[in-house]
Amino acid sequence: MKSDHQFSRVLIVGGTHGNEFTGVYLIKKFEQFPQLINRSSFETLTLLANPQAFTAVRRYINKDLNRCFLRHHLEDITLSSYEDLRAKEINYLFGKNGKTPADFIVDLHSSTANMGITIIVDNDEPFNLQLAAYLNYINPAIKVCNLGNSGRSHDSLRSLGKFGICIEVGSVPQGVLNAEFFLKTEAIIYTILDYLELYNQEKVPSFPNNLICYEYLEKIDYPRNEQGEIQAMIHPDLQFKDYEVLHPGDPIFLTFDGQIISYQGNSTVYPIFINEAAYYEKGTAMCFTEKRIITFE
Amino acid sequence: MKSDHQFSRVLIVGGTHGNEFTGVYLIKKFEQFPQLINRSSFETLTLLANPQAFTAVRRYINKDLNRCFLRHHLEDITLSSYEDLRAKEINYLFGKNGKTPADFIVDLHSSTANMGITIIVDNDEPFNLQLAAYLNYINPAIKVCNLGNSGRSHDSLRSLGKFGICIEVGSVPQGVLNAEFFLKTEAIIYTILDYLELYNQEKVPSFPNNLICYEYLEKIDYPRNEQGEIQAMIHPDLQFKDYEVLHPGDPIFLTFDGQIISYQGNSTVYPIFINEAAYYEKGTAMCFTEKRIITFE
Repeated sequence: MKSDHQFSRVLIVGGTHGNEFTGVYLIKKFEQFPQLINRSSFETLTLLANPQAFTAVRRYINKDLNRCFLRHHLEDITLSSYEDLRAKEINYLFGKNGKTPADFIVDLHSSTANMGITIIVDNDEPFNLQLAAYLNYINPAIKVCNLGNSGRSHDSLRSLGKFGICIEVGSVPQGVLNAEFFLKTEAIIYTILDYLELYNQEKVPSFPNNLICYEYLEKIDYPRNEQGEIQAMIHPDLQFKDYEVLHPGDPIFLTFDGQIISYQGNSTVYPIFINEAAYYEKGTAMCFTEKRIITFE
Repeated sequence: MKSDHQFSRVLIVGGTHGNEFTGVYLIKKFEQFPQLINRSSFETLTLLANPQAFTAVRRYINKDLNRCFLRHHLEDITLSSYEDLRAKEINYLFGKNGKTPADFIVDLHSSTANMGITIIVDNDEPFNLQLAAYLNYINPAIKVCNLGNSGRSHDSLRSLGKFGICIEVGSVPQGVLNAEFFLKTEAIIYTILDYLELYNQEKVPSFPNNLICYEYLEKIDYPRNEQGEIQAMIHPDLQFKDYEVLHPGDPIFLTFDGQIISYQGNSTVYPIFINEAAYYEKGTAMCFTEKRIITFE
């Protein structure tokens, strides 16, 4: 397979959200044992993105760091919260015009939703999709979703890199380190680094040229009262059923007084991020996706 | 069954920890539909114990409210954090010399550990143990543990009542409402209220006079370095295995560089609260218990 470009610097990021421990402790491990992530054809750097939030065991101190990377926010000198300043610092270090710009960023996350092992891409960039397809080929349990339609390609930390993906594992509670997901995330990181090495050397092996990809359609909020308080919970039949088909008429919420609320749409969808703790405040009970098969040339 | 005393006031408490949503939303439901918890022979009150922590989606604002009820702390006028003041207010309302003292307190909690449905008692008080045995008779999936040896009978909110228990459900991530555990907790509350009603009327039916109880032995911390940072995670073989037998030599931790740490004790124990998010800061990776069969007269 011929390579269009070369990777010279890869950035592995953990703790973009301070209470997602998988990434934080992997970064600490890689800082202690850097040979694990060294590859001959590129430099690998690590970043603990939000150390104050990690110390506080919170997602963030003032605002969600992973929404702070819009170009005009980075350039806005009036934005000066802890995460605004941290985003500017990270951009200064690793952004496209930064001190040590990152060609590829892998950002490590966990979710309280039953996301299993998910590779998130933010657009149709062929390189990222082919890497995701390779990871899925190596480990078929890996799911791939494209959040491009949600705007994440513009405001996320990983958007700083020329290329990049997010690894999202779960269900893991906030503030908890789960060994199974730690080990699985670690294995994927090594596979990614090996793939980038093979790519630089034009030695990527051939692998199936298609991929099942779950593409973001819309987010669904909880039923709320006029004060904004939630009035229902995820229906037990839907809890933990991320990536499973949802048909029109299937139950999605159960109100506190026992009423079932069903999915009223006309088309089959595949919900993900079902009951993610951090998304209650964002007005998101789940995200609907559609399942597509992508074929490469 | 003859009753030694009468219950005149029962207090149901949720949100003692602000990010444990099961209890919070049950309290909101009971406030909206008070007839659900009304019984003829006693008054039932509800309390959202830490509303500021709930708003912030945190366990607490300044300190763990459920450790603020030591007698000499309640009397110490120099203690004035948000939770200290809230504890004094709750004691003033529902404590033994309070405005409306509670004869029985049920405090609603959730855990990231796989506690299933656990009834926690804090001592050998026969009334509490018999109630726990009754709940286990009605629903055999309910586990009962006695944390008396951990000091919880002196510093917890529920220690304000003459009698009381804690319902602990999990695994539920912090900041997440899980419908299954909401419904199961709700059902236990109704069974408790019905039992107290039958007790007041001296109509408690006979039920088996023995109970399996897991009694607190000690807490086990994560391996840590000199800076206090954890150096290992719960071993995958132990994760989610709360209440299962642990033999000497069984793995308990996995270090970040892949070393297995085994249980070095001489006797068989039953770990609970394995990988509870809120206990990382308390130096507790799990609690060891011993399994005892208690027989009533």
